[in-house]
Amino acid sequence: MTITTCIFDAYGTLFDVAAAARTAAEEPGRGALKAVWTDLAEDWRQKQLQYTWLRAITGEHCSFWQVTCDGLDWAMERRGLDTDAELRERLLALYWELAPFREVPMMLGRLKAAGKTCAILSNGSPDMLEGAVDSAGIGEYLDAVLSVEDVGIFKPAPQVYDMVEARFGCARDKVLFVSSNGWDAAGAAGYGFQTAWVNRKDEPVDRLPARPHHVLSDLTTLPELAA
Amino acid sequence: MTITTCIFDAYGTLFDVAAAARTAAEEPGRGALKAVWTDLAEDWRQKQLQYTWLRAITGEHCSFWQVTCDGLDWAMERRGLDTDAELRERLLALYWELAPFREVPMMLGRLKAAGKTCAILSNGSPDMLEGAVDSAGIGEYLDAVLSVEDVGIFKPAPQVYDMVEARFGCARDKVLFVSSNGWDAAGAAGYGFQTAWVNRKDEPVDRLPARPHHVLSDLTTLPELAA
Repeated sequence: MTITTCIFDAYGTLFDVAAAARTAAEEPGRGALKAVWTDLAEDWRQKQLQYTWLRAITGEHCSFWQVTCDGLDWAMERRGLDTDAELRERLLALYWELAPFREVPMMLGRLKAAGKTCAILSNGSPDMLEGAVDSAGIGEYLDAVLSVEDVGIFKPAPQVYDMVEARFGCARDKVLFVSSNGWDAAGAAGYGFQTAWVNRKDEPVDRLPARPHHVLSDLTTLPELAA
Repeated sequence: MTITTCIFDAYGTLFDVAAAARTAAEEPGRGALKAVWTDLAEDWRQKQLQYTWLRAITGEHCSFWQVTCDGLDWAMERRGLDTDAELRERLLALYWELAPFREVPMMLGRLKAAGKTCAILSNGSPDMLEGAVDSAGIGEYLDAVLSVEDVGIFKPAPQVYDMVEARFGCARDKVLFVSSNGWDAAGAAGYGFQTAWVNRKDEPVDRLPARPHHVLSDLTTLPELAA
């Protein structure tokens, strides 16, 4: 089977979502954050995701920016940091310029050199995605940056995965969908895409109805998989 | 406003979901579990819930028993316990006879003495709920045990909360919905029930569109709230 189109999740897959808390923790005067930044980053991410899922179920869609703020507020309160308004603003500002994982630019360059269509399909709001893509300097490799805002519901609702065919007209089995989020890889596999799960944290595979076709430890070897 | 009907979530609210791992960890020969049982219980619960939400979004409903097994399998693999088939069976068996929180029988007895309708509304399968209710000896206080199996989707889908009016014919604002799960309390509040969130772990309130009307540390004072 020939892969024509590589579709990437953004947050956690191309962009390091822990980078905001890690970067802030390295700044002077952040002693309280330094002690808890890994827990804060984990809670922030988990609540952000939970809120996307719960809103998808109840039909109460909002922007990804809203759930990003909401998740951070929950996480800061849990760690006793909720009175630090300056830290909140700093963490949110850093979310607009998350570092890409180091292998990302070369990996995308190799896919483009091999003639593949490459795009992002993300829960992120268009403005957040534009900020992250610009900051990472990877816009030249991307044929499209697709946001769930165009369908008004978060992943893994099938309407989101429908956006790929709507944009590129490609059959599902010609698409390689790439995500570091096990639940997103499972959703895409169930939808009918070929899928690669980037298991950066060496976690067990999610016990959901569909399993990813491939499991990678990072994105370095992805061009071979798509060849 | 007069509350006529008290509706309880089951797992985590009336029944202690951590009791299975805690009980097993106290048994002889469970050294490996003893070292990690709190983490295992937390992962088990989180994955069980995640799988209910993800299946609600993708329309891939299954029994709560299935996601309970799936969540445990993920959690056991993460802690390196996945080769212990005997432990798996033991933990699953304990899930059928979870201890109720200690204040539960007296609280339900007081509500019934005050003439309130009392029922469970749970993601649990009817057979799992029957096992837990019997084991806890609280069946005499319950006018109904409602399971999402009758509507084929998990909470917080509004179809689940619809089951209360379908069964009891009561207006939404006459219902006091009680859950220790912040997302369930938020879903029920958004649906239009009066809600009490039992914040047993002293966690921040979830940043979801609706907030619970009342926050309790346990169920002891619930009869006053419903009076």
